[in-house]
Order: sequence, then C-alpha cells, then structure tokens
Amino acid sequence: MSYCVGLRLNKGLVFMSDTRTNAGVDNVSMFKKMFTWERPGERVITLLTAGNLATTQAVVSLLEERSKAPGDRDPDIMAVPSMFQVAKLVGETLTEVIGSRGTSGQKADSPFAASLIVGGQIQGGEPRLFLVYPEGNFIEASGDTRFFQIGETKYGKPIIIRAYNPDMSFEDAIKLLLVSFDSTIRANISVDLPIDWQIYESGSLHIGRSARVERDDPYFQHISNEWGTALQRAFESLPKFEFKP
Amino acid sequence: MSYCVGLRLNKGLVFMSDTRTNAGVDNVSMFKKMFTWERPGERVITLLTAGNLATTQAVVSLLEERSKAPGDRDPDIMAVPSMFQVAKLVGETLTEVIGSRGTSGQKADSPFAASLIVGGQIQGGEPRLFLVYPEGNFIEASGDTRFFQIGETKYGKPIIIRAYNPDMSFEDAIKLLLVSFDSTIRANISVDLPIDWQIYESGSLHIGRSARVERDDPYFQHISNEWGTALQRAFESLPKFEFKP
Repeated sequence: MSYCVGLRLNKGLVFMSDTRTNAGVDNVSMFKKMFTWERPGERVITLLTAGNLATTQAVVSLLEERSKAPGDRDPDIMAVPSMFQVAKLVGETLTEVIGSRGTSGQKADSPFAASLIVGGQIQGGEPRLFLVYPEGNFIEASGDTRFFQIGETKYGKPIIIRAYNPDMSFEDAIKLLLVSFDSTIRANISVDLPIDWQIYESGSLHIGRSARVERDDPYFQHISNEWGTALQRAFESLPKFEFKP
Repeated sequence: MSYCVGLRLNKGLVFMSDTRTNAGVDNVSMFKKMFTWERPGERVITLLTAGNLATTQAVVSLLEERSKAPGDRDPDIMAVPSMFQVAKLVGETLTEVIGSRGTSGQKADSPFAASLIVGGQIQGGEPRLFLVYPEGNFIEASGDTRFFQIGETKYGKPIIIRAYNPDMSFEDAIKLLLVSFDSTIRANISVDLPIDWQIYESGSLHIGRSARVERDDPYFQHISNEWGTALQRAFESLPKFEFKP
C-alpha cells in the first residue's frame, strides 16, 4: 500500500505522499510516489501514485517519454491544453498500461490496479485536482469534496474531515497532513516515512516549495509525540460518560 | 459492513457494536450484532458479529438452539468448561455455517465470510476475549494487544491506539469507544447508530450494565459535536509548521 493526499486550498494545492512499497511483507522498499512536470510560467502538473508499482512506474515512464518525443502522435502531457485533458491523458495511459498486462503471459494473483491523484495549473485555467480510478475514469475535487486520498486512506481521514478548511495556510495544511500521515503510519506498516510534500501556489505557474520529511525530522517527531498527548487531552476534555442510575 | 469493538480492561470487558447492515446501498437495515448467554453466577458470554448477515444469524441461531437441546451430541455454549472452548465452539460453528453454503445451489459474488469477537468469563477461569477469523481459527487479546475490532475498523483505530489504557474506568472506556464510533460513522455510511454497549465486571459472573445509544441521545450528540472542536483545538495546540528559509 501507500498513502497519498492531494488537498485543494483557496491559496493553491498541497500534495503529500509516503515512500513505502511492499510486495508481501518480505519485499519492502522505498520509492518516490510524487512526480512533477513543469514549464515555468506555463504549466505545473503533479502526480501522486498508489497501487501496483510496475503499473505506476510504467504510467509515469510513458508520460515522461511522450513529453520528450514531440513528433510522436501520442498526446503529450506538456502539450495538452487543459488540466481536464491532463487527467484524461493520465487515465488513458493507466488504462493502456493495465490493459497491456491483462491477457498473455504469467497471471498474477492480485490485479495490477493503481489509483492516481493529479493536480496543477495550465496557463489560462484555474488550478484543478483530480482523482483517477484504476479503470481510467476520474473525478474532480470541487466545492463539497476538496481533497482526495489514495492508498491506505482510512486511518488518516477523520482528522482531515475535522480540521480541513479551504482558507487554511499552506503551513497549516502541511501540519494537518503530517498528523494524518502520522496516524496512518502508527496503525499500518504498509505506510512509512520518509514523506514527500509539495505545494503549488495558485497562479504562480512554478513548482512551489517541496521537501522530504525523513524519519529523524525533529518537527515530525515533535508533532508525532505531541499529537498523542494532545489527543488524550482532547479526549479528557470531553464531558464524562455516566451510567444512568 | 459493521463496526464492533471488544476491549479488555483490568476491571473487566467492554463491548460495543453498531446496528447497520447493508446489501449494496439500497438494502439497508438495522440488526443487533451483540448477543449474550448468561447463567448467573456461573458464566457470561458475549458475542459481536460482523460480515455476512445470513452467516452470523445462522451461527447465533445454532449456538442458541444447541444450548437448549441438552441431549444433543453437539457441544453446547452453556456447557463447555472454559472460554477457550467457547471460542473453539464459535469458530467451529462459523466454519460449519460457511461450509454448508459452499458447494451447491446459487453462487454468490461475495463470500459468506464473517468475523466475530467473543468474550466473557466462566467460573474457575479469568475473563477472556477472542477474535474469531472467517476461517474459524482465533486469537486471544493479551498483554500487548488488549482490544479487537471487526468490520469497518480503520477510521476508529487511531484514537483507540492513542487513548486506550488498561487501567481506565468503564465510563472512560465507553466514552472512548463512542468517540471511535463517531469517527467511523462520520467517515463511512456502512456504519451507523444506534449503538449497543455492554460491560462485564471481572469476577461478577453476571451481565453488567448495557444500553442502546439512539441517534438522538444527548450525550452522544454532545460528544460528537465537542470532539470536532476538541480535535481542532488539539491540532491548533501543536507547534506551527514553518518553511525553512
């Protein structure tokens, strides 16, 4: 599994992903799951991946390769005119990759499925955020649902539901996602540090700040320890339950 | 889905279960998932069920029927000598029910699987708590893992991990589980109120207090509202994230 979140704020977009991949429990390794295409001043596109690693790597490689072969008749992520077309292209590439594995050769027990989050901005359009399903179709984050999670999503969802607010600052959004990742990492061994994050500021058309949070990152360790105490305090602050006489 | 939790405290056992069952989204109904067998002063056994409703109802009916047919050669949940034997009997009954559906007649798309939590005390033994897998085998809650969840377990796990403490009072344990259920209910429509709870006090050999928490229960509503605020306060109390210059 993996855990990735894409968040739409009024100020822009925030992306965060873990780096753990595993096939069973004895084949555990570390892979980056965040990929960015940028033409400064014109477009910034960020992709987060969860699911079968061979599938997601093939999708990223195909998108990458085709963006560097301008004569190719396949569509190019650096040339399509809108974020909607980007999401469509990513979905089609995913379908192509999964389809090419389906019918011949060794069969696998588990499907080659993957889920993707893709977001960014292309000149002339607004910043947009999409969730691409394993089937290649996709939905967009809008008014009511302004964040997407893929991979091991459940442990870290309650805190996002309660504390997310579209007006929040980039700093608060990163703090919120670190708490959500910490809850997930504590409950599930298939998600782990290091964590990558990146922000995109609306209208900038440049990659925003980004960083990798390592296991010994003092801020993350502090958040992780403090959150336990803060949760317990929050729990204690709730009115006591009393048996009815 | 369902959501049920069994918690082992130093003072005894706490059980909580929701009541929602659904087949798809257009066949939603309400069924109790908590069942108790008691012979006051001699044994108290509580069973929580999640999974295929036909399977869990058949398991409960068989256990019930056999406890009322003393001449029957099948083992009787009211007669077996230990909680270990109770867990074994429950597991065998589950295997029997699932096995009887396996080979003839209409095939279903989804398996008839179910998971069960069974706990209680029989005179001469300690209170014990077991998780019975769909395959019929089972594990016991012990030193390191003192609670079991079945059904839609992930949303409500982080708060239990952070706030559970074996020394806590029954009242605090019920409050903790209500918070865990509230987080789950807010994130997932397959779990819903009303919620049933029951406690068992070590050594009492009588069913402890129990109740049903309805949708309009003022304490639950209060907890549910306050928890959002408390979580936000907890989140705000964490040190601010700052971009490195």
